[in-house]
Amino acid sequence: MSTLKHPGTIHGVGLGPGDADLMSVRADRLVRGARHVAFFRKKGRPGQARRIVEGMLAEGAVEFPMEYPVTTEIPLHDPEYNRILSAFYAECAAHLRALAERGEDVVVLCEGDPFFYGSFMHLYTRLSPGVPVEVVPAITGMSGAWTATGQPVTWGDDVLTVLMGTLGEDELVRHMASADALVVMKIGRNIDKVRRALERAGRLSAAWLVEYATMPNQSVMPLTQACERVTPYFSIIIVHGQGRRP
Amino acid sequence: MSTLKHPGTIHGVGLGPGDADLMSVRADRLVRGARHVAFFRKKGRPGQARRIVEGMLAEGAVEFPMEYPVTTEIPLHDPEYNRILSAFYAECAAHLRALAERGEDVVVLCEGDPFFYGSFMHLYTRLSPGVPVEVVPAITGMSGAWTATGQPVTWGDDVLTVLMGTLGEDELVRHMASADALVVMKIGRNIDKVRRALERAGRLSAAWLVEYATMPNQSVMPLTQACERVTPYFSIIIVHGQGRRP
Repeated sequence: MSTLKHPGTIHGVGLGPGDADLMSVRADRLVRGARHVAFFRKKGRPGQARRIVEGMLAEGAVEFPMEYPVTTEIPLHDPEYNRILSAFYAECAAHLRALAERGEDVVVLCEGDPFFYGSFMHLYTRLSPGVPVEVVPAITGMSGAWTATGQPVTWGDDVLTVLMGTLGEDELVRHMASADALVVMKIGRNIDKVRRALERAGRLSAAWLVEYATMPNQSVMPLTQACERVTPYFSIIIVHGQGRRP
Repeated sequence: MSTLKHPGTIHGVGLGPGDADLMSVRADRLVRGARHVAFFRKKGRPGQARRIVEGMLAEGAVEFPMEYPVTTEIPLHDPEYNRILSAFYAECAAHLRALAERGEDVVVLCEGDPFFYGSFMHLYTRLSPGVPVEVVPAITGMSGAWTATGQPVTWGDDVLTVLMGTLGEDELVRHMASADALVVMKIGRNIDKVRRALERAGRLSAAWLVEYATMPNQSVMPLTQACERVTPYFSIIIVHGQGRRP
């Protein structure tokens, strides 16, 4: 079989924080024009990325849901977790590569910004440079969250640090104490640890909890009012900087 | 004079990193439909925000350029700098408030994301809550920059810290040494100091300099190859995280 002169392109398309109206003009055009659409989702769930583009896909678009084999059932640091996920990403990448080699373009739907803590990165490193891959940046979930609070997040020379709630408590405290503005992501079951860390760092009273930013069920509240709250994994905590301003 | 029942809305519209195709669908619609458009610019310059929307404004749209009275001529920490800028922002806000009170909507064009180190914040705090203000988040310049490098910026539990090149060298070093991924903004004449700080923190060899991200004259190079380079204020330096990945 001869090599195709024009392989297809895999587009890693950031969809932004959740509101389809906040997708970029480029993302909107790529999604509406796509013949092949791939997206990650949990088993048995519609998937947040797919939900964002509901009603936008062209008639006859072929959908390729990529279902995570594990998510939170196995501890993150168990080598088995890595082995299973790595095999899964390799399988997904092989499917996309095969489509590209047949000359098909594929749009991979990505929540948030693809290169910022995104799952697409695991496909990207397995596909590129062998397969043409284009990445479309997007509005991050954290931009959606700080906009939802109605207060600017950083002023002047403020230092902003972005932390994952999955980090250890002491490490969280250390970073929380040394930055001006804070974003904490991947909250969910980490919320009690994150709250304790904010308290130890003296930042708890200024922290906001944002759930479902930019979506119809968006909720914004001071974190101190969220005691005992069960919050989704994709909640975001914001502490605003108070830097220099004229 | 009786109070108007329907004041206009001031829309702080993020335009993203520079490529108009990366504006959100909402921003695109607001800009094309605007009767009043305001934007900051340096005296005698067209203004980057205005440049992004070139060819998009409706016929007859009224433009209100807000020209900075000072930029880098007076040191940042001189009280006179603050006084002059504060009077300038108050004057701009008064003009926008007057338009809103006449029932006019105004689109304020904002480079990047309005609540992330943006000039619009200085109008926002002077207008809101007295005047209806809506903020449209956008793709940040840093998202444009890390996408331009062709490498994901953060993985797994990576800590990302965003620093301004205007900070002191020792403070830069301290933050550079303790984060996994780094973004340094406001480079320009701070480039030598930032380079020294990265070197002291052991991060220089992994740093990338991105100029004019997402624009036709975009340039991406290892920072070590940018010696003696005169780089714009809005250049961005990226150091990628190397965190956990399956």
